[in-house]
Amino acid sequence: MQKFLTILAIGFLTCGVSNAVGQSASGEDIYLPEPTRSGGKPVMDAISERGSAREFADQPLDAQTLSDILWSAWGFNREGKRTVPSAHNRQEMEVYVILAQGAYKYDATKNALILVAKGDFRKDAGTQEYVHDAPLNIIYVGTAEPAKRHFSFVTAGCAVENVYLYAASKGLACVVRASFSEDALKKTLNLSDNAQVMLGQTVGYPQK
Amino acid sequence: MQKFLTILAIGFLTCGVSNAVGQSASGEDIYLPEPTRSGGKPVMDAISERGSAREFADQPLDAQTLSDILWSAWGFNREGKRTVPSAHNRQEMEVYVILAQGAYKYDATKNALILVAKGDFRKDAGTQEYVHDAPLNIIYVGTAEPAKRHFSFVTAGCAVENVYLYAASKGLACVVRASFSEDALKKTLNLSDNAQVMLGQTVGYPQK
Repeated sequence: MQKFLTILAIGFLTCGVSNAVGQSASGEDIYLPEPTRSGGKPVMDAISERGSAREFADQPLDAQTLSDILWSAWGFNREGKRTVPSAHNRQEMEVYVILAQGAYKYDATKNALILVAKGDFRKDAGTQEYVHDAPLNIIYVGTAEPAKRHFSFVTAGCAVENVYLYAASKGLACVVRASFSEDALKKTLNLSDNAQVMLGQTVGYPQK
Repeated sequence: MQKFLTILAIGFLTCGVSNAVGQSASGEDIYLPEPTRSGGKPVMDAISERGSAREFADQPLDAQTLSDILWSAWGFNREGKRTVPSAHNRQEMEVYVILAQGAYKYDATKNALILVAKGDFRKDAGTQEYVHDAPLNIIYVGTAEPAKRHFSFVTAGCAVENVYLYAASKGLACVVRASFSEDALKKTLNLSDNAQVMLGQTVGYPQK
C-alpha cells in the first residue's frame, strides 16, 4: 500500500504541485520515496558554494528531491537520532512543509507528509513575494520550553544549514527567512500555544 | 612575513598544543594555512555519518585541519559573506578557540587566531571532563541585540552543523555542548557585557 501511495505521490509531485491528483488514497497524506542518504558534491565544495538565492523557477520539485531535502533537515540517520543535534537528544522541533496544494507536517519515521490543511497557504509562509510562488517552503517550529527555546533555534540552524548544503550540491536555490505572520502560520499549521514558528526556508530550482 | 608565521604555526601546532614554541614573532597570534575549500566526502554521506562523539585522543589537530574546521564554521566563502547565513548578513557572532596554550579569537579575514589570553583555559570551556583534555574547543558568542539574540543562535547552529559535517567527512570526533560557566568564559575571553556565550563545540581525533 505504501509503495502504491509513493508512486501516486511521485506522479503527483512531478506533474505539478498545484494538481490535486496523486495524494494518498485517503486524499490526505503524501508518502515520499526513501531518502538517498549518499552522494552529492564533496562537503567542502558544498560549503564553498553555500549561499542564499531568492529567485525561483516555476517548476515543482520531484518527490525524490523533496524526500532528500527533508531527510537532510530532520530525518533519522541512525536509530532514534537525527541528521542534526538537539539538546540531550530531546528533538524539540517540528518541521512543516507548505506546498501549493496544502500544508503538511513532515513525519520522518513514516517518511511522509501528513496533511494539516488543504489549500494554497503559501501567502502565510512569508511576507516576501517569491515565497508565494516557490514550490517548497519549510517551516521550522520550536517546541522546547520557553527558557530553553534557544536550543530549538540551534537545532533549526543545523537543519537549515544541511538544506543549504544539499541545495548547493544539487544546484537548487535556497534562502532562510524570518519574515512571516506567526499568528497566521500558527493557525494554518494548527500549532499549540507553546510552539513557536522559528524560521522559514524556501527551496526550488533557480530562475533561469 | 605571514608565510613565515604560518610555517611557525604549522610547526607549532603539529608538534603539540601544549608547546609554547611557534607562535607569531610577537608571541601572540597564530597564522593558519589557507583553508582547503574543496574535497571531502559527498555531502549526503557526511550527513548520514553526522553524530556526536565524546571521547577524544590525546593528539593535537594539525594546522590545516584547524584552519579547515574554522573556515567551515565561520570563514568567508565569497566577498563579504560567510559559510553560514545570518539575519540581513549582519554576522552577529564571534568565534573563539580554546587550545591547550591559550584562548584566541578567530579572525577569518586574516585567517588567524588572535591571542586573547595565554594559558590553559580548557577547564573554562565546559564542565565535562573530556573538554579539559581535548585539543580544540570552539566557543560561539552571540552579539545580536537581546531581542534578536535568537538569530545568533541560528547562525551558531549553522556553524556547528558545518563543523559536524567536516568532522564526519574527516573521521574526527565532535560534540556540541551548552554546559559551561558563562561568567568564567566571559572573563577569559574578555567579552563585553552584551555578548552571550551560546555554545561550545569540542573537536579532536577519536579515542582508539
